[in-house]
Amino acid sequence: MSAPLPPDLTEDGFLGGRLVIAQPARGFRSGTDAVLLAAAVPAEAGQTVLELGCGAGAAALCLARRVPGVRVTGVEILPAMAALARRNAERNGLALEVIEADVGALPRALRARSFDHVMMNPPYFTPGSGTSPEEPGRAMGNAGPRALGDWLDTGIRRLGPKGRLTVIQRSERLPEILRVLEGRLGQITVLPLQGRTGRPADRVIVTGRKGSRAPFRLLAPLVIHEGHAHVEKGESFTPAVARVLREGAGLPVAWG
Amino acid sequence: MSAPLPPDLTEDGFLGGRLVIAQPARGFRSGTDAVLLAAAVPAEAGQTVLELGCGAGAAALCLARRVPGVRVTGVEILPAMAALARRNAERNGLALEVIEADVGALPRALRARSFDHVMMNPPYFTPGSGTSPEEPGRAMGNAGPRALGDWLDTGIRRLGPKGRLTVIQRSERLPEILRVLEGRLGQITVLPLQGRTGRPADRVIVTGRKGSRAPFRLLAPLVIHEGHAHVEKGESFTPAVARVLREGAGLPVAWG
Repeated sequence: MSAPLPPDLTEDGFLGGRLVIAQPARGFRSGTDAVLLAAAVPAEAGQTVLELGCGAGAAALCLARRVPGVRVTGVEILPAMAALARRNAERNGLALEVIEADVGALPRALRARSFDHVMMNPPYFTPGSGTSPEEPGRAMGNAGPRALGDWLDTGIRRLGPKGRLTVIQRSERLPEILRVLEGRLGQITVLPLQGRTGRPADRVIVTGRKGSRAPFRLLAPLVIHEGHAHVEKGESFTPAVARVLREGAGLPVAWG
Repeated sequence: MSAPLPPDLTEDGFLGGRLVIAQPARGFRSGTDAVLLAAAVPAEAGQTVLELGCGAGAAALCLARRVPGVRVTGVEILPAMAALARRNAERNGLALEVIEADVGALPRALRARSFDHVMMNPPYFTPGSGTSPEEPGRAMGNAGPRALGDWLDTGIRRLGPKGRLTVIQRSERLPEILRVLEGRLGQITVLPLQGRTGRPADRVIVTGRKGSRAPFRLLAPLVIHEGHAHVEKGESFTPAVARVLREGAGLPVAWG
């Protein structure tokens, strides 16, 4: 018997029901992007992973579910969301360390640690732009006023030797992401995410590895939905994406 | 009767034979990339176009053939190549102004002019890297020791109001291109060019517009060859690419 769910929360199944995440009914809610992010992190058993801005823990717990033995730490600025992430971990029988902190001002103890992987899904808005049409709750909440560059910089600083950064973001921010990563990480690889085939990329997953000198690569896009038109009812994910979202498969982005 | 062809030159048909280009038999030779570059420039009759590093004039003359009434100027550092570009223009009955100059040190008269479009196919090597496996002739020849950033900077400076830059380059140089363009051009758009479907991009065409504040866009890739395997004999271009290469069609990259 689980405790009754507060009325401002919903419970959502991820990975074909392998994971149940309680999250706020309004404001920023994790979905496909969190699952794709976690799938793109090539972590192995025994490795450490830091997620910046873990929210209710969807991405962190997707990763913990896919890779047994991985040690995941999430940073979350909002106490209520951090508590929810801890509760979601416990509820799903997964280990997750949650640290309440501002991504731009990590506590000293965390700054003394390094990780094999850092992943993040930074807020999809620009501080000071005055608008955040997609996720007002998050802009006011767990995002804080930090710019994308600060998130990336914080993530890069927490990478251990040969550590890998993985980030998902709106594709229009790609130039900014590359500018911050260039010269600090190698093997930088971009996976464009297209809503449908032939369309411009909506999102990008970008990875890079510390200490690598391998060149930049722009991969073929991952197409999210089948067909050319919106399907109102029913499942429309492409087989490759359905394997990730419904079966908990990994998403090969990193290479070499 | 045309003059006999020197033995170190070949004559190559472009645009399904609509254009014949004499070029050196060895060293850098224009091909698919030059045609795709010219096709991606959305020039209109009466507009001015500057090509940096025009070589024997293949891209410049493809554009002049596709867009009647466009006024094209090419810059070429090697006198022999500049002369060949002029000869190719005359031979094809097309107008082309060719200026012998180093891209990094344009003559004062040219620096006083601005253009509606600037296009370039900068050398596919990094100065000082010591190797240039793909095009040793060009590295020693019309490329000179200029870095990619210098080519882009020179091009941006020659754009008039709302002028558009179009560049084709190896995809691994995309971060460097975006770094130079960001903040100076808007409406930056990347068209990845994939050798075959599902592969990483080999090349990118990048455009940007002066005075625009439109966001960055990453387009769906253009697939160059049909199928998943190399076809030894015969035509294997995808229909969209064949229309550009064989029929002289334009390639929509710019938008808005």
